[in-house]
Amino acid sequence: MLKLYYSPGTCALASHIALIEAGAAHEAVLVSFKTEEQRSAAYRAINPKARVPSLVTDKGVLTETPAILAFIAQSFRQAKLAPLDDPFAFAQVQAFNSYLCSTVHVAHAHGRRGSRWADDAASFADMKRKVPQSMAECFHLIENTLIKGPWVMGEAYTICDPYLYTVTGWLAGDGVDIAQFPKVREHFARMAARPQVKEALGVETPRDAAAG
Amino acid sequence: MLKLYYSPGTCALASHIALIEAGAAHEAVLVSFKTEEQRSAAYRAINPKARVPSLVTDKGVLTETPAILAFIAQSFRQAKLAPLDDPFAFAQVQAFNSYLCSTVHVAHAHGRRGSRWADDAASFADMKRKVPQSMAECFHLIENTLIKGPWVMGEAYTICDPYLYTVTGWLAGDGVDIAQFPKVREHFARMAARPQVKEALGVETPRDAAAG
Repeated sequence: MLKLYYSPGTCALASHIALIEAGAAHEAVLVSFKTEEQRSAAYRAINPKARVPSLVTDKGVLTETPAILAFIAQSFRQAKLAPLDDPFAFAQVQAFNSYLCSTVHVAHAHGRRGSRWADDAASFADMKRKVPQSMAECFHLIENTLIKGPWVMGEAYTICDPYLYTVTGWLAGDGVDIAQFPKVREHFARMAARPQVKEALGVETPRDAAAG
Repeated sequence: MLKLYYSPGTCALASHIALIEAGAAHEAVLVSFKTEEQRSAAYRAINPKARVPSLVTDKGVLTETPAILAFIAQSFRQAKLAPLDDPFAFAQVQAFNSYLCSTVHVAHAHGRRGSRWADDAASFADMKRKVPQSMAECFHLIENTLIKGPWVMGEAYTICDPYLYTVTGWLAGDGVDIAQFPKVREHFARMAARPQVKEALGVETPRDAAAG
């Protein structure tokens, strides 16, 4: 059975939703960022990058959200989560997810993970100040040129949708008003209404824990 | 015919090499970073991200190196540039390329593109100082856990190889001694000896231009 290592509030949510959408038998395993469990020797043995998500399969471990999402789509073809028989359309899906991974997630990460790229507290503060601007620029591009609607790739729901939903969920905390991006806002609401999304959120943030 | 927009010294080299490896009829079109041509209205009409590479196909434009590389592998199956019939193995390829794109390239970019993530000159200098460390950390991970040898994925040459070669080529300019990474160094030399790589470099850096 597939095993997904996740932490709430991270990009692992995209893979978690996709597993549920695919109807894939899986177990979701919490990696506690509060106790820095991702840096433990036990977790590093699974994923030397000390990050989430990690997807443990019967062939080995996969990391990196765009790769995990493509794996889920290709392994559960009947769920039709990507245009697998059209190299151009599949590449468009990959391009969108690659942009989220390498540009949008990176812009977001400068708000709290500045120590990856600098050493001075003043630099961290400078980076943090710029997050609302850089995230807004990314979402203007998504709104104006990338999202086709109603889903990211148009009429068909794909592995781009849970990933965009996940990253959109970071906007409020990043100081960006989603109201500037009507298509993105509609997409976020449409996703939030899906039972599969509610199921993933229910697992990641149990009501008791959220209240505690 | 496919048209690849590139600028020398950028990650577009990976897609350029892959096109040649695939035997794909293509035209390589220079986008001059010296004149900031990537920000021109004409180029933004092709790629609103104002970056290279862009691959113009008969179905539309593709961006993002991991997506372009996967498209080349899937469109020219006879070249066997990826394990296309094995979702796990293909996801490993995608995971490697996603890591280069979202972590290694991003670490490198902090040396010269700090204005993407901060505003103060002091922050840019701080970021630039950290590049040798962050790039070395990435390459320790590649050396110790990711590269299988002789090629990235083992015995089979894949779309990971031109991408690793391209990013490895940035190490010297980033102040990182490649000698620390024997497998990566051997891979770099093995790639540099390939006629397809020499051909791509010959197009991107004509001898007259390099001397001028």
